Amino acid sequence: MATTALVPITDGIEEIEAVCVIDVLRRAGVDVTVARVPSPTSSDPTVRASRGVWLRAEVPLNECLDHEWDAIVLPGGLPGAEYLRDDPELTALLERQDEAGRWLAAICASPAVVLQRHGLIRGRAATCFPGLRDQLPTAVRSDDRVVIDGNLVTSQGPGTALEFSLAVVACLAGPERRAEIASQLLTD
Amino acid sequence: MATTALVPITDGIEEIEAVCVIDVLRRAGVDVTVARVPSPTSSDPTVRASRGVWLRAEVPLNECLDHEWDAIVLPGGLPGAEYLRDDPELTALLERQDEAGRWLAAICASPAVVLQRHGLIRGRAATCFPGLRDQLPTAVRSDDRVVIDGNLVTSQGPGTALEFSLAVVACLAGPERRAEIASQLLTD
Repeated sequence: MATTALVPITDGIEEIEAVCVIDVLRRAGVDVTVARVPSPTSSDPTVRASRGVWLRAEVPLNECLDHEWDAIVLPGGLPGAEYLRDDPELTALLERQDEAGRWLAAICASPAVVLQRHGLIRGRAATCFPGLRDQLPTAVRSDDRVVIDGNLVTSQGPGTALEFSLAVVACLAGPERRAEIASQLLTD
Repeated sequence: MATTALVPITDGIEEIEAVCVIDVLRRAGVDVTVARVPSPTSSDPTVRASRGVWLRAEVPLNECLDHEWDAIVLPGGLPGAEYLRDDPELTALLERQDEAGRWLAAICASPAVVLQRHGLIRGRAATCFPGLRDQLPTAVRSDDRVVIDGNLVTSQGPGTALEFSLAVVACLAGPERRAEIASQLLTD
């Protein structure tokens, strides 16, 4: 069975972070689903990301609730991360993902705004956008660009999005696959 | 008057490369227009990029032909770069851009597949996706991740897309603005 990942998107998410993870996981052979989380103004399949890029989701989130995702990966960006935080269906899905010990990954605003708020960081090592570090009170805060602790993968922002995506590849498909995709992408 | 940049997109372009440049130039205050170039199968505003991400353009390219763009920036990706190459309106626009000495930037497949093919590299220093280096016969080929020669900016692939986008910011808005945006993005 294919390895699966869910990437929820909504208006105001950071487009570099969303697109890097979708693209890089698909290069690694992961079956990625891009799901629309409603925002206060729209539940149209096409979202307007934080710098005005229009991205079209493949399915509404409410069609993704019964699947056991190998990974759920949250892009950051504001106010997008707040809309992810405020969606009750996504919240329940994230809680189940963590309880089952399956991969939970978040970058930029989302570790603080979504995971911390829902009690999903606990005492684990984590990072987020440096300007939001104060909002990770229960984490063992790290200054590393990507942090992995148990089933939790966190990272800092657009400039760390490729490293973050490659770390998720390593978690799902192993370090050799990670190295192969990094070489194909021409990361440093 | 605002500094303007045109980013042409079509089916099969590399989504990381397209989204990085749109996002980063907008962070720098550049007025970016995302234009649909028709592919053999579609001229719908929404394009399907190389790894299946759906991106919606803002205008069709034929509404962009009369403007004097400060920069035209071509994402790479295959077959997307071939569709950019084969569009006669885009070709005429690129030729005028170069004749006027305004910025012309291309990454990954596009320096070789588009610019070289239309005679827009000449003897200038340039780079492209390493697997396509043989297709840059008239360039002074460079192994640098980003190369600037005159009004021509070229780069290698998804892993160099942020550096490339920041180089275009430096060309359009100066090195201090570049440094400010690099810091905001958390690039190395």
